[in-house]
Amino acid sequence: MINNQFAIVPTDSEAAIAELTKIHFITPAMTSLTTVPAVYRALLAESFPEVKTTSGLKHKFANLMATSQLNLNEWLENATVVNNQVFYNVGLQLLGFLPGQDFDLADPLLAMRDIHLPMVADSAFDRESLYYAWYLLLNTRGNNGQTLIEALTARGYFVPFYQLPNEQKPLFFNGKAQAVFNTNDLIRDVVYVEAPLDTDHDGKRDLLKVEILRPAETATGLKVPVLYTASPYNQGINDHAGEAQMHNVDVPLTAKTPDTNTYEDVEYQPQTPDLPAERPVKTTSDDAEETFGREKSYTLNDYFLARGFAVVYAAGIGSVDSDGLAPTGDIDETTSTVAIIEWLTGKRHAFTNRDADVAIKAWWTNGSVAMTGRSYLGTLATAAATTGVDGLKTIISEAAISSWYDYYRDNGLVVAPDTFQGEDTDVLAAEVFSRSLKSGDAHRIQSKFDEKLAELTKDQDRDTGNYNRYWDERNYLKNVDKIKADIVMVHGLNDWNVKPRNVANLWDKLQKVPVTKKLILHQGQHIYINNLQSLDFTDMMNLWLSHELYGLDNHAESLLPNVLVQDNTKAETWHGYDNWWQDSTQSLDFKVQYKELVPADHPVDQRAAHFTDKLPDKLFKHYQQDLNAWQTDLLSESKTNPLYDHRLLFKSWQAPSDQLLVGRPHVQGSVAVNKNFGMLSFMLIDFGEAKRLTVSPQMIAAKALDLGFHWREDDLKDFKLAPATPFKMITKGHLNLQNRHHPWHAEAIQPNEFYDFELDLQPIFHHLLKGHQVGLVIYGTDMKMTIRGNQDLQYSLNLNDIQLHIPVKSIDEN
Amino acid sequence: MINNQFAIVPTDSEAAIAELTKIHFITPAMTSLTTVPAVYRALLAESFPEVKTTSGLKHKFANLMATSQLNLNEWLENATVVNNQVFYNVGLQLLGFLPGQDFDLADPLLAMRDIHLPMVADSAFDRESLYYAWYLLLNTRGNNGQTLIEALTARGYFVPFYQLPNEQKPLFFNGKAQAVFNTNDLIRDVVYVEAPLDTDHDGKRDLLKVEILRPAETATGLKVPVLYTASPYNQGINDHAGEAQMHNVDVPLTAKTPDTNTYEDVEYQPQTPDLPAERPVKTTSDDAEETFGREKSYTLNDYFLARGFAVVYAAGIGSVDSDGLAPTGDIDETTSTVAIIEWLTGKRHAFTNRDADVAIKAWWTNGSVAMTGRSYLGTLATAAATTGVDGLKTIISEAAISSWYDYYRDNGLVVAPDTFQGEDTDVLAAEVFSRSLKSGDAHRIQSKFDEKLAELTKDQDRDTGNYNRYWDERNYLKNVDKIKADIVMVHGLNDWNVKPRNVANLWDKLQKVPVTKKLILHQGQHIYINNLQSLDFTDMMNLWLSHELYGLDNHAESLLPNVLVQDNTKAETWHGYDNWWQDSTQSLDFKVQYKELVPADHPVDQRAAHFTDKLPDKLFKHYQQDLNAWQTDLLSESKTNPLYDHRLLFKSWQAPSDQLLVGRPHVQGSVAVNKNFGMLSFMLIDFGEAKRLTVSPQMIAAKALDLGFHWREDDLKDFKLAPATPFKMITKGHLNLQNRHHPWHAEAIQPNEFYDFELDLQPIFHHLLKGHQVGLVIYGTDMKMTIRGNQDLQYSLNLNDIQLHIPVKSIDEN
Repeated sequence: MINNQFAIVPTDSEAAIAELTKIHFITPAMTSLTTVPAVYRALLAESFPEVKTTSGLKHKFANLMATSQLNLNEWLENATVVNNQVFYNVGLQLLGFLPGQDFDLADPLLAMRDIHLPMVADSAFDRESLYYAWYLLLNTRGNNGQTLIEALTARGYFVPFYQLPNEQKPLFFNGKAQAVFNTNDLIRDVVYVEAPLDTDHDGKRDLLKVEILRPAETATGLKVPVLYTASPYNQGINDHAGEAQMHNVDVPLTAKTPDTNTYEDVEYQPQTPDLPAERPVKTTSDDAEETFGREKSYTLNDYFLARGFAVVYAAGIGSVDSDGLAPTGDIDETTSTVAIIEWLTGKRHAFTNRDADVAIKAWWTNGSVAMTGRSYLGTLATAAATTGVDGLKTIISEAAISSWYDYYRDNGLVVAPDTFQGEDTDVLAAEVFSRSLKSGDAHRIQSKFDEKLAELTKDQDRDTGNYNRYWDERNYLKNVDKIKADIVMVHGLNDWNVKPRNVANLWDKLQKVPVTKKLILHQGQHIYINNLQSLDFTDMMNLWLSHELYGLDNHAESLLPNVLVQDNTKAETWHGYDNWWQDSTQSLDFKVQYKELVPADHPVDQRAAHFTDKLPDKLFKHYQQDLNAWQTDLLSESKTNPLYDHRLLFKSWQAPSDQLLVGRPHVQGSVAVNKNFGMLSFMLIDFGEAKRLTVSPQMIAAKALDLGFHWREDDLKDFKLAPATPFKMITKGHLNLQNRHHPWHAEAIQPNEFYDFELDLQPIFHHLLKGHQVGLVIYGTDMKMTIRGNQDLQYSLNLNDIQLHIPVKSIDEN
Repeated sequence: MINNQFAIVPTDSEAAIAELTKIHFITPAMTSLTTVPAVYRALLAESFPEVKTTSGLKHKFANLMATSQLNLNEWLENATVVNNQVFYNVGLQLLGFLPGQDFDLADPLLAMRDIHLPMVADSAFDRESLYYAWYLLLNTRGNNGQTLIEALTARGYFVPFYQLPNEQKPLFFNGKAQAVFNTNDLIRDVVYVEAPLDTDHDGKRDLLKVEILRPAETATGLKVPVLYTASPYNQGINDHAGEAQMHNVDVPLTAKTPDTNTYEDVEYQPQTPDLPAERPVKTTSDDAEETFGREKSYTLNDYFLARGFAVVYAAGIGSVDSDGLAPTGDIDETTSTVAIIEWLTGKRHAFTNRDADVAIKAWWTNGSVAMTGRSYLGTLATAAATTGVDGLKTIISEAAISSWYDYYRDNGLVVAPDTFQGEDTDVLAAEVFSRSLKSGDAHRIQSKFDEKLAELTKDQDRDTGNYNRYWDERNYLKNVDKIKADIVMVHGLNDWNVKPRNVANLWDKLQKVPVTKKLILHQGQHIYINNLQSLDFTDMMNLWLSHELYGLDNHAESLLPNVLVQDNTKAETWHGYDNWWQDSTQSLDFKVQYKELVPADHPVDQRAAHFTDKLPDKLFKHYQQDLNAWQTDLLSESKTNPLYDHRLLFKSWQAPSDQLLVGRPHVQGSVAVNKNFGMLSFMLIDFGEAKRLTVSPQMIAAKALDLGFHWREDDLKDFKLAPATPFKMITKGHLNLQNRHHPWHAEAIQPNEFYDFELDLQPIFHHLLKGHQVGLVIYGTDMKMTIRGNQDLQYSLNLNDIQLHIPVKSIDEN
């Protein structure tokens, strides 16, 4: 294990001692101890909350080696000094590292360095430096992906702290909130927030069901901040309805009628809706009338429930027990999402039931709200942030969509999220319209929803794939300048579901917005990264939220790197950067020559290359069934590969040194097609035999991450290097040849005439190893993402026109 | 979903009403209601523990349709009778079925029948029949794999029952213990049991660490039974040590020195060990001095922790905080396992710490013990049962080993468990010797263990693969006649890790033993089946353990089928049988002719067939890396298949009707090999294009199975039909040609001389569909299981000598 830990707050010795005292590691009795080994023994004694007697403790100590020859009891017997060898021998064992396997008892300091664990340089400790080293050790991450203090938490260390008076809660240690709240006593309420919407047009404002979990301490006056997750999936999913709505993608591409559209023609203008009046408030109560059993939980939220944060879930319009219709990303959905925050901050009413006769306030919160969640959940957090709603201090948006066009479309083409061929906004709406799961409610509302669904189907316009008013309404990037919340964004560089453009565009637009923003790019696909062994993501978020929501001055804003990126060439390696591509001035520029990518200043011949898109029927059917076989064949250089003549492949020199390819690779060229319509797809490839990271983290230990004491758990995982492969796709891009200039503007093309094109591929942050080659693949139909008509389309490209531009970053920046 | 539910106790109306009253569904207030719809409304009102007000309830009712047109509120308004249409419309919704998708509101009874849900025939209910129907509905399983009462439990129904006085606990409903124990209040103790062993020869009896979880009610006098799981994995695993011990399997088969062994020569005779005295007991206590944070839990145990059972985990000799050395299956391990039961039943001492100065009794138990667990855990349960230890009322052994020879060897050959090529008893011992994970302890004990390990390596004798005294000691089948515990056995018919012979031999030997025994055979591999959507396994175990451990007269012994088998041709289909093959008198008998299996009474030609075992180097290496490719090629009938000439394949007629192949297929024949040693392997195949079940259950809903209220969870899963495949392996078998008569007796063979052989293949329970063909494959090296020397071995078989005998069962028996 290599530790990548960013959330340790530099603390001076005096403050460390005060903090140790606060969490009872330093006890009054300790001051009467006269030797450093005696103090050390006392600290160690606190580290076994399981045992209540000297005898029990003696046995626990006997399990630990202090030196190569002496166990801890034996060593303590004659110890006169505590040196760093003994301290880190024992420390490494407390952190779950095994002598002989993970480190050598003869040289623990070497392991501390190799594993990247922080340590104190002193070779022999006085009382103060011992305290300091102990403080640091408690805040050091171990082999189980948790800091020592977290591991102790899971073993009951903080149980006595449950009884602390409210004034002493929450309890922060090294800038992070600790698990001193008894999760057995959580209070679970349901309320119904009245949103400024009437999406189901029943003449009454839409009520939205909200599930709240809050610490018992709120009942006795503690005000806590809120982690709010807006999740349309939260009240159930209608899989069947979604499947029924799924689109056939094996349909032909057709010529679009040319138009004269400018952006202004498709720009969405928000309208002020004609709203029913708010419900009158006759009576109020502090007590909810409804509770719930098991919410659909989210690990990161669970972690914070033990640490003095409330958690709120809402599924929004169209979900079970709420009003309204599911609209997939429109402005009403944003309003629905924000309404909950407005209630939490006292600006909107909620009621104890759907008769709405008793109003209830969020009297238990301090009014500071963060939004959390991945995918659609993170999307709604982004949407809410772009309204600038008060009280929303920060969002942690993971794998979030920033514009729905970038999720379901690309440059005038219908382009599906990976593994969801045929999905579209209407499919998603049908799926999350969970009111359909409650037949009594469905009986009343289904016909209205079906009308709405027909509207979505029409307006999303799969026929053209153009960017239109419908998509412009669903483009949060337009309102980035309104953002007031600080932002942490997390995205997978291999996420081909929510493609990297979504986070990149948001990040880029945020550059000018005066909020604190942090970006984490990992090598996974559409995953969350709370449970990695080698990265302290959860601690970072604790630091962040303790700062953002409790106002703790813990330097979260400066301790966390602006851009944290997982290296794609090694396991357990993360680097901080000042920015993504925005501060890069260098680039790699290529032209092409026969099957090669050559430096742009290289003279190239004038020459055209051709490929045909149509595949033999049997092969096409095979690829429909086995999309991975299609991708493998597409990239295979073997001449017997059945796709050899169905795409162009260009390979560069072998990189003379490691390269860091960043940002948006740009391709331009000229193309002719034998019809009056056509599409091009592009892939950028890293060619070179190498072990590469798995795109999904691998299981290390099931249920090994305790989120508190006797509370929920997560599996410990991490990315591992897989057996060597000859290549890996870095990024891709798609273009409808009629949308060469704008996704909202379709132009006519004539068969067999050459047209210039240019486009950005999905943004990257890719470490290209020395000796590897960059590859560019140009093809037509993308079996995994585009529509697949298997049409007789023949493409010609003027090779001398093709240019590939890739921004690069200096490899030594970090 | 098709429901397969066996654990409903037939209950008369009077008893049902009494039980409904006991669990407060029938309330005193209900007697004053004058109409059946009013009573029905009151019952429904109890079914929403989340809501506390009429308004809240009204909304929940509004979510349910009573008829095609009326929701429950609307219907209740004018209802004068409750008919079964309305009752089951609402009932199906309460069970999680969705109108329009899972059933039609116009005909709920059809769905009740199709889904196999029990129902009351009355078309209009009087008060009594309504109660009865309600009782049955509460005990009916829904779409989420839980009964309605279980679903209500997860929503808090039984929370008020936490306060019941001890005299009213446990609470049984329909013969099964209910979750009326607050798992937040569980008490966790550690004690150290003194075993009658000194396996580490330190002159002191081995102390064994035991982790106990017990309901808080035990502190106030409730005596509870114990689910005891003996798991050598429980305190951690030393993966590195196991890997280091792994054996190279790419070694040649060699000729064994012929011997004159009879069974008596290899029979293990237990010896009375020379034991140190018991530790003197000076003081005693009722209170433990040590506790623990998070145990390595087992879902089935967790479920029972909410229902009035204690759970005990012990990892046995050689594990963290215990004494002794890990011995993989020897008699000491059994003694270590049983010692815990002896303590639980007052016959052995335990101490509160490892200084053993304070003794502690298991004063909180009623002395009834069950053992649970899968694989090694179930093996130890089996081992303990074969001692006949008092207090062990029953074991539920899942995928258990009954003889370690059948796990690591077969008919004189080293034969690995699937996916664990190279593993052996010494590897497993190194892995579970978790004392090595505590360096202080390891420092004292490792050298002794290394000696022990060298002994295991020697005695297991990979050189010959013979059955010897070492293996005879590890053969629990020898002591089956001592078993006094009732037994439930669960095993996968596709379990090639712990192969089916293990359960079949135990089952067969148990036929004469006067205990109640039940067998469940599923279509999975080495899995547990607690969380299947379509089978009420957990309920069955509740019925069983309520009976076995609390002495409840719930007819568990007769309600559960003797042999319950999952059909391999359809999803969600289970049949009960009186026995496995023991009551079968019919069989299919084949001889062979060229490439065919022909009926045994068919005249066949005299003729020999040949194959060579040696593969081209490159192909061999490919198969080493890709064992599944090897198995696919082995069974492929294509003449271009590279294994075509490396095995013999015979196929039968197309079955004229469905066949149920059961028990131990028997193969005989005569073979010559070009060396003075050799091996044969056999596979039985089901040929026929068909959708077949996945061998692992597929995820239906993560964390959807609540094991109590705000307690631990399991994922809901089930086996699904996968895309059609042309064949499936039914079973296999292996034979060292020098062990044609006994695994303990090696005979000489001469090169190129023919020798008769016969063997049983691993036992089966296989539904062969009409039109499918039986295939027999005869080959040499089994890449997945045997050693793989890739030697120049050439085999000839006299085709006219080959016979295949397969017991069959009448397909209509069930």
